[in-house]
Amino acid sequence: MIPTKVHAEVTQVKVVENVKEENNMKNMMKKVDRYPGRVWRAAVKMGKEDPRKVTHSLKVGLALTLVSLLYLLEPLFEGIGDNAIWAVMTVVVVLESTAGATLCKGLNRGFGTFIAGSLAFLIEFIANESGRVFRAVFIGTSVFLIGAITTYMRFFPNIKKNFDYGVMIFLLTFNLIAVSSYRVDNVLKIAHERFYTIAIGCGICLVMTLLIFPHWSGENLHNSTISKIEGLAKSIDACVNEYFDQIEETYDESNKDPIYEGFKAVLDSKSNDETMALHASWEPRHSRHCYKCPGQQYVKLGAALRQFGYTVAALHGCLRTQIQKKKLNKQISKITITSLEFSEALPLAAFVSLLVEAVAKLDIVINEVEELGNLACFSECVKKDGDDQYETITIKYETPRVDLDQDHLPSNRTE
Amino acid sequence: MIPTKVHAEVTQVKVVENVKEENNMKNMMKKVDRYPGRVWRAAVKMGKEDPRKVTHSLKVGLALTLVSLLYLLEPLFEGIGDNAIWAVMTVVVVLESTAGATLCKGLNRGFGTFIAGSLAFLIEFIANESGRVFRAVFIGTSVFLIGAITTYMRFFPNIKKNFDYGVMIFLLTFNLIAVSSYRVDNVLKIAHERFYTIAIGCGICLVMTLLIFPHWSGENLHNSTISKIEGLAKSIDACVNEYFDQIEETYDESNKDPIYEGFKAVLDSKSNDETMALHASWEPRHSRHCYKCPGQQYVKLGAALRQFGYTVAALHGCLRTQIQKKKLNKQISKITITSLEFSEALPLAAFVSLLVEAVAKLDIVINEVEELGNLACFSECVKKDGDDQYETITIKYETPRVDLDQDHLPSNRTE
Repeated sequence: MIPTKVHAEVTQVKVVENVKEENNMKNMMKKVDRYPGRVWRAAVKMGKEDPRKVTHSLKVGLALTLVSLLYLLEPLFEGIGDNAIWAVMTVVVVLESTAGATLCKGLNRGFGTFIAGSLAFLIEFIANESGRVFRAVFIGTSVFLIGAITTYMRFFPNIKKNFDYGVMIFLLTFNLIAVSSYRVDNVLKIAHERFYTIAIGCGICLVMTLLIFPHWSGENLHNSTISKIEGLAKSIDACVNEYFDQIEETYDESNKDPIYEGFKAVLDSKSNDETMALHASWEPRHSRHCYKCPGQQYVKLGAALRQFGYTVAALHGCLRTQIQKKKLNKQISKITITSLEFSEALPLAAFVSLLVEAVAKLDIVINEVEELGNLACFSECVKKDGDDQYETITIKYETPRVDLDQDHLPSNRTE
Repeated sequence: MIPTKVHAEVTQVKVVENVKEENNMKNMMKKVDRYPGRVWRAAVKMGKEDPRKVTHSLKVGLALTLVSLLYLLEPLFEGIGDNAIWAVMTVVVVLESTAGATLCKGLNRGFGTFIAGSLAFLIEFIANESGRVFRAVFIGTSVFLIGAITTYMRFFPNIKKNFDYGVMIFLLTFNLIAVSSYRVDNVLKIAHERFYTIAIGCGICLVMTLLIFPHWSGENLHNSTISKIEGLAKSIDACVNEYFDQIEETYDESNKDPIYEGFKAVLDSKSNDETMALHASWEPRHSRHCYKCPGQQYVKLGAALRQFGYTVAALHGCLRTQIQKKKLNKQISKITITSLEFSEALPLAAFVSLLVEAVAKLDIVINEVEELGNLACFSECVKKDGDDQYETITIKYETPRVDLDQDHLPSNRTE
C-alpha cells in the first residue's frame, strides 16, 4: 500500500536538482542570452494575471516623484529644508499594496514615533538637570533598559502579531532622539520639523492608497476565500469523478494533479488569512452596500475550510491507494467484486466514510458562510441574461438505490 | 454523523467573545488593578520557557548602548560626527534573534545599499553634465522609473521570498542619494562617512549575534522538527489509546484535546519552516560534528510531516464520529458487535484504513529522516547510565491474531 504519487511538494525539489545537473556550461551561455527575454515574459504574464500589481508599482513611482519634488522644487525646499529626506523615507517604508496594510503601518509608525518622542523628551528633561557625565550615564542606562524591555515585549505573541512594526519604530525613534539630544541643543525644533515632513510623507501615502485606484485587503480576503472554496469544490469533484472512472487518468508524476492543485492552497492559508484580516480591520467601509469587512468571520471560515481541506487531503491519499489497487484488480470480473475480501473492502469503506466525514465538515463550512453572509450583508445572487458570471446552482438530492441483498459487504464464509 | 467537537480553532473565538460579554465594568476595574501583575507573570513565564528570549533582549540592549557610545564619548564622536546616527539605526533594524536572520538582513542591507549607491552615482554623473532644470527632470524621471520597476520586482515570488528586504533598502538608499545629491555638492564624502558608520553598526551586530550567546536558526529548525515529530507521535498514541478505551475521555469542549494539541502545530508550519531554513542557509557551520545545516532537507521533511499530519487530522475526525457512535451503542452486548451492519462497520473500516494510510505516509517520513541523518551526519544515539534523556526504543512486531471465522465483516443476509 505504498502511494503511487509522492506529493509534488516533496518531489519538486528533486526534479529541480536533476535539471540543474543537466545544464552544463554550454547551455548556461544560451540561457544568459535568453535571460532578459524570459524575465520580460514572466513580468508581462504576472501583470496580465493581476493588473493591480502594475497599478501599485506605478502608484509607488508617482508617490516617490511627488515626495521628491519637496527637494527638487526651490520654493518647497526653502520651506522644509534637509528634513525632506524623512518624507522620502516614510513613503518608501509605509506605502504598501493595499489600503489596510498602508494604514496599519502608517498608524503603527505614527504612534510609535509619538510615544518614543514623548518618552525621550521626559528622559532628556531629567538628564538636563544634572552634570555632563551623569547625563551620559543616564542616557546610556535608559537606552539599555528601554532597548532590552522593548525587545522582550516584541516576543509577546499578541504584540508581535499586531504592533511589531510600531514597537520597532518606537525603539528606533527613542534611540535617535535620546542619543542625538546629547549633542544637539534644540532637539525640540528638530523633532518639530521632522514631525511635519513625516506627516507630509504619510499624507501622500494616504492619498495614494485611499483615493487613487485603491486596493482593499478586505476585497483580497473575500476573493481568496472564494478561490479556496472553488478549489476545494474542484478537488472533491475530481476525486469523485476519478473514483468512478469517469475521466481518464492521463497525468503522470511530472504533470499536475488536479485534486492536489485544488486543495493545496487551502492547507497553508492560515497566516495569510490572518494578515489580510488584520489589515482589513484597519480599512474604512469601502462600498455602498457593505458594512465594515468582518475579517474575523473570514478567519473563522478559513479555519473551517482548512478542517474540510484536511479531510479532502485524506480522501486524496485514500484515492491514490485505491487507484493502485484498481490496477491490480482490473482483470477480476464484476462478479468477484461483490465478493470482496475484508482487506479489499477496506479502502472502499474508507473512501465512503471519508466522504461522509467531508459532508459533516462541509456542514460547519456552510454555517460559517451563512454567518458571514449575515455579517457582511451579502445580497442575493441574481442571474442576468447573457451574463455568464452568475450561474444558477441546482442541487439535486438523489435517493440512493438501497438493495439490501446486493449492496452490503458480503463476508467470506458465505461464498 | 455530526461531529461532537467542533475544533478548538473554530470555537475558541466564540468562547472569547462570551467571556468578553460577561466582563462588565465592575470586573474591568479589578482587572486594571491586577494588570501589571498579570503582565509580569506572563513575562516571567515566557522567560522561563525560553531563556534565549531574555538573553536576546539583553544583547539588543547591550548593542544599543555600545553604539550609543559613538555619540556619548567625546573622542569617538569627534572622529565620526553626526553620521553616528546611521550606526544606531542599523543596529535597531538589523539585529534579529538568530544569527541566520541577522546575517540575512545585514547582507541584504549591505548589498541593497551598495547597488543603490552605485546606480545613484551613475545617474548623478549623467545629470551633472547638464543644466539645473534638466537635472531636476532627469532625477524625477529616474526616481519614478526605478521606484515603479523595483516595486514591481518585489512581486516576483522568488525575489519576495529571498531578497524583499534588500530590494526595499535598495529603493530607500537610491532615493535618498539621488534626491539629496541635487542639493549637496559633495555627495561622495557623505556616502563615504555613512558607509563607515553603517559598517560599524553591522560589525556590532555581527559580534553580538555570532560571538555572544549565539542562537542558530538551524538549531531552532532542528528542535521544531523534533517537537513536531513528538507531537504527531503523541497524537497517534492518544488516538489509538482512545479508540481502544484504554484511557478515560474526561476532557470536554473547554478542555484541551490531547490529539488536536499534538498535530495542530504541524499543519500550519510551512511558512515558518521555510523562513527558518532560509535563515539557516546563511549561517556558517556552527558545531564541530555537524556540517552546514541541510535546511532544504528539513523543509522536505516538514512537507512529509504535514502530509502525515493531514492523515492524523482525518483519523481524529473519524475518531470523534466513532466516539459519538460508541456512546449510542454502549448498551449493545459484545455478541451483537460481531454482527455489525454495513453503516456501523463503516467507521471501523475507515479508522483501520486511515491507520494503514498513516503507515504509508510514515514510510515517506522515515525515508526523509534517514536522508536528513545522512546529510547532517547525525551520530548514533548512545544511552548513558543514569541519563534519562536517551531511551532505547524497542519496536515490537506483533503478528495479528487472524481468525477467519470471527474477524471478517459479516453481511446482513447471513444473520
